[in-house]
Amino acid sequence: MAKNIFGDKWTFTSFGESHGAAIGGVLDGVPAGLHIDFAMIRSELSRRAGRGEVGASQRALHEPDEVEWLSGVLDSVTLGTPIAFLIRNKDARPEDYEYLRHTYRVGHADRVYEQKYGIRDWRGGGRASARETAARVVAGCLAKQELASKGVRIHADLVQVGAETDPAKFTETIAVYQREGDSIGGIIECRIQGLPVGTGEPIFDKIQAHLAYAVLSINACKGFEYGTGFRGVTQPGSAINAISGGISGGISDGTDIVFRCVFKPTPSTPKAGVKGRHDACVAVRAVPVVEAMTALSLVQFL
Amino acid sequence: MAKNIFGDKWTFTSFGESHGAAIGGVLDGVPAGLHIDFAMIRSELSRRAGRGEVGASQRALHEPDEVEWLSGVLDSVTLGTPIAFLIRNKDARPEDYEYLRHTYRVGHADRVYEQKYGIRDWRGGGRASARETAARVVAGCLAKQELASKGVRIHADLVQVGAETDPAKFTETIAVYQREGDSIGGIIECRIQGLPVGTGEPIFDKIQAHLAYAVLSINACKGFEYGTGFRGVTQPGSAINAISGGISGGISDGTDIVFRCVFKPTPSTPKAGVKGRHDACVAVRAVPVVEAMTALSLVQFL
Amino acid sequence: MAKNIFGDKWTFTSFGESHGAAIGGVLDGVPAGLHIDFAMIRSELSRRAGRGEVGASQRALHEPDEVEWLSGVLDSVTLGTPIAFLIRNKDARPEDYEYLRHTYRVGHADRVYEQKYGIRDWRGGGRASARETAARVVAGCLAKQELASKGVRIHADLVQVGAETDPAKFTETIAVYQREGDSIGGIIECRIQGLPVGTGEPIFDKIQAHLAYAVLSINACKGFEYGTGFRGVTQPGSAINAISGGISGGISDGTDIVFRCVFKPTPSTPKAGVKGRHDACVAVRAVPVVEAMTALSLVQFL
Amino acid sequence: MAKNIFGDKWTFTSFGESHGAAIGGVLDGVPAGLHIDFAMIRSELSRRAGRGEVGASQRALHEPDEVEWLSGVLDSVTLGTPIAFLIRNKDARPEDYEYLRHTYRVGHADRVYEQKYGIRDWRGGGRASARETAARVVAGCLAKQELASKGVRIHADLVQVGAETDPAKFTETIAVYQREGDSIGGIIECRIQGLPVGTGEPIFDKIQAHLAYAVLSINACKGFEYGTGFRGVTQPGSAINAISGGISGGISDGTDIVFRCVFKPTPSTPKAGVKGRHDACVAVRAVPVVEAMTALSLVQFL
Repeated sequence: MAKNIFGDKWTFTSFGESHGAAIGGVLDGVPAGLHIDFAMIRSELSRRAGRGEVGASQRALHEPDEVEWLSGVLDSVTLGTPIAFLIRNKDARPEDYEYLRHTYRVGHADRVYEQKYGIRDWRGGGRASARETAARVVAGCLAKQELASKGVRIHADLVQVGAETDPAKFTETIAVYQREGDSIGGIIECRIQGLPVGTGEPIFDKIQAHLAYAVLSINACKGFEYGTGFRGVTQPGSAINAISGGISGGISDGTDIVFRCVFKPTPSTPKAGVKGRHDACVAVRAVPVVEAMTALSLVQFL
Repeated sequence: MAKNIFGDKWTFTSFGESHGAAIGGVLDGVPAGLHIDFAMIRSELSRRAGRGEVGASQRALHEPDEVEWLSGVLDSVTLGTPIAFLIRNKDARPEDYEYLRHTYRVGHADRVYEQKYGIRDWRGGGRASARETAARVVAGCLAKQELASKGVRIHADLVQVGAETDPAKFTETIAVYQREGDSIGGIIECRIQGLPVGTGEPIFDKIQAHLAYAVLSINACKGFEYGTGFRGVTQPGSAINAISGGISGGISDGTDIVFRCVFKPTPSTPKAGVKGRHDACVAVRAVPVVEAMTALSLVQFL
Repeated sequence: MAKNIFGDKWTFTSFGESHGAAIGGVLDGVPAGLHIDFAMIRSELSRRAGRGEVGASQRALHEPDEVEWLSGVLDSVTLGTPIAFLIRNKDARPEDYEYLRHTYRVGHADRVYEQKYGIRDWRGGGRASARETAARVVAGCLAKQELASKGVRIHADLVQVGAETDPAKFTETIAVYQREGDSIGGIIECRIQGLPVGTGEPIFDKIQAHLAYAVLSINACKGFEYGTGFRGVTQPGSAINAISGGISGGISDGTDIVFRCVFKPTPSTPKAGVKGRHDACVAVRAVPVVEAMTALSLVQFL
Repeated sequence: MAKNIFGDKWTFTSFGESHGAAIGGVLDGVPAGLHIDFAMIRSELSRRAGRGEVGASQRALHEPDEVEWLSGVLDSVTLGTPIAFLIRNKDARPEDYEYLRHTYRVGHADRVYEQKYGIRDWRGGGRASARETAARVVAGCLAKQELASKGVRIHADLVQVGAETDPAKFTETIAVYQREGDSIGGIIECRIQGLPVGTGEPIFDKIQAHLAYAVLSINACKGFEYGTGFRGVTQPGSAINAISGGISGGISDGTDIVFRCVFKPTPSTPKAGVKGRHDACVAVRAVPVVEAMTALSLVQFL
């Protein structure tokens, strides 16, 4: 199985424990000559950290998330060789999690990791922590930059928080849950524009299948739908037959692709009696991760 | 990209055009010593053909779907070598589709195939036809038999047709659309029981991601959700934190896994002015295909 | 592991037992629009069967090796979909091998198969028989045709039989071993012309590494060398530094690539007390198989 | 293509330019619970650097080759998560190679890299430098340790330098070429003991094919043979039919496997007018690299 590796054209290997020395990744297959926009990467990491957002985990806010580039880049231009990078874990506080050495948190992967491997890094979730997604954001930025150079744009937005669908009210909705030491779920919508006609493979690597695989690999994601999705079940064929959702037989037809994905609330909250640093609505910080995984998925097809 | 190949442990290669000589497949990686239950395979193919169901395509009903085994099996027992099989297309009527030689059907992949490849088999959808799923059902049966021998059971059911959620009324609901020359969508729920604790990979091959990839590769599938799914968005973390949906951090926790997927109505109906042989509710015949793809997904992890 | 599958661009899956219903293969990833030259395929299969050669196995000579095309081709042109084909085993005589049901032949894989799988197809070597290479030749022909359309030519020749290096004397040398019920090895040289500069990957998929992997997968092949090869060990750097062998750092430099490979004599001969139908010099019939595997290797890089 | 990634069970990704910030790698798929012997890794890196050997490059001798472990290990025990490590390039002297910015060295990959990528890291060969093999040695050590825990031992030795086959005289032979500013090739023999019967895959992942692929990925390697190899060509089947070389039909038969590989002399020598720091006989330092790649190959099959 692919385990910690994503993609066979742009092959992204992710590594690192939440409270180990560093997290990071290697991107193999990136073409030579791509100019890397480092400012955009910093900005996306900041977005993932939830800076300026209500209810973001304090851990995320305190990590500087400084990317160190180890290889594959000379004078900001890719060489065609593997691009390795790392982000040091500076605000790691294993002592905060000392109590987890012999305990499993409800709703977390602590127990299954121990059952699967016979050993686990108990320090803050180790590899299962959402901190790993910072490496995905870095890799996704390179994929986005390549896609942008070919006219493909990806844009995701939070479209629902709990029962609330008015974006103007998301901040206050989240603040309510935060004050109560609770958490709430959200739905993200992502639009892909400019994908060339004919992108995708017709049987098993249909675009929608690969996107779902990419997005459902993000922690807390519980569902994926595109085009008419689950709501389309009530409409007859005569009403919806011209709505392709941008994909026909697994292959892009040149119109926009729109998909939606849902994120459950984090289970480890003060209200549930779990100490540590957590998010009132993980969907907020998942938005750039959804974009990153979408980019990493699409770049495999070009 | 994987194109027509699924899985890296049990590697299934699917081949065949809808109105060519045959469809079929090769399964590589099946362990030696598995006793094949051929009667079960015939029964599943019959279920996929929609025999006994209202509104099934006449093409499916007229195809005998007889499987010819070419290799990998001696006296009903697998040899550990590749298992190749084929199903002849006996009721192929390319002449029915002669009019498609220079036409594209709305809502079908005809046009994007031509755009992607510069050539296409216009005979009844060629490779994009749902007939290809018969090969998946055969391969899925072997996977199911292997899983059953390890105590893993997979069972899918239609749980919604249009707005109707009472199974007792599905047949009449479909009959209404059929009489009108129209079609309707449906939702399938699938339950996995007995999966050993620790199955799944923690980052990119999370069970839910791989299942979504498998299920969304089925024609007409528009969405996938598991556990609390999209409906869970309105519930706070304090209410749902003990509901794992059988998966924690991408790894099975030993309890049942339940997922749901939605199938849109077929767009090529008499009402839409499309000739040929079609289904009033493709979700009916998708049930055994969902089980087959679920089995092919899970068998990669064992 | 790849088992019965070769390549990730043109993915070739080989199937079939020597004395089962059929051998064959599926080629996935062949671009649409390639015109297949069926006469060339028949000619290459005939070459592999050893027609017109001294000392070829009688089995090979009696098999018509008629290829049945199942999918992926319409009016001799590829569709971009998987190309499946089979060759029936018409001269299969399992009864000739009845004595092998409980016996293992010296120098053959009979025993290790049984040890590995706990079961084996004892009928003439089953999957380990060189008959499997007929499927490789068919697949290799398509790869050769694609390569030829891009100006790449592959030509292999027998350059040594036993100690004999004069091609004019190969036939009589082999005849001597055949009369004695014995067998002898041979060396094949293969030249690749017209490969574009820059073909190959610099670290693990160096052209020479991939070619060696392809060629050493052929039964009875015991070694591979290219450029100065083993003989170059005695020459100082100052003498050979301009001889690249067509490859630099794993990447083609535009000049011809020449490699050599050695085939051991078949161990199951009348002289060794083994009944059945065998070759006095398998290297003769290996020549088109070496070309086929070379083509299947190179086509992955284009 | 695999590019910079080796293996599908223990997946090793190699990264880093010779004169960039660091070289290193990520190993995904290493089981949890392996105790890492760091002293053995230091010792193997020292062997690769040629410490104590005549004619080794001064660059190699001056690099401390200190491994920094980034992830996947807690208290010297593997966690089952990706193991990332790096080695800083401390003795990098890009200025030594300034003259290469617009020049290509004869017999090196400088030119084909530029032709392939349109850009290259001109600093000392960049990615094509043999320095990259240090990362392979680290990864190979972990594979060796896993194999040793299962009773598999790998041992390689230099068996020929130029025409010299007496190991006692290798040092003085190399010294002669070094004094002349020249270089010479060598042959390495590698013995694998204790490999379980049944290891290997019968068609395309035959052990010998995978080993050749692994070994021919090492810079300067020009050939691979096993068992009777090229020399066996002169022996009749009746004489050698009981010599399996430890492999039958691609699968280990439980006896020792012995293979040999040849390394050409480095082309960039003072005698050839090339400045920089070079080896008089690269085969000497290739010995631990051959062992490492052998271990990385075999560990894919267990």
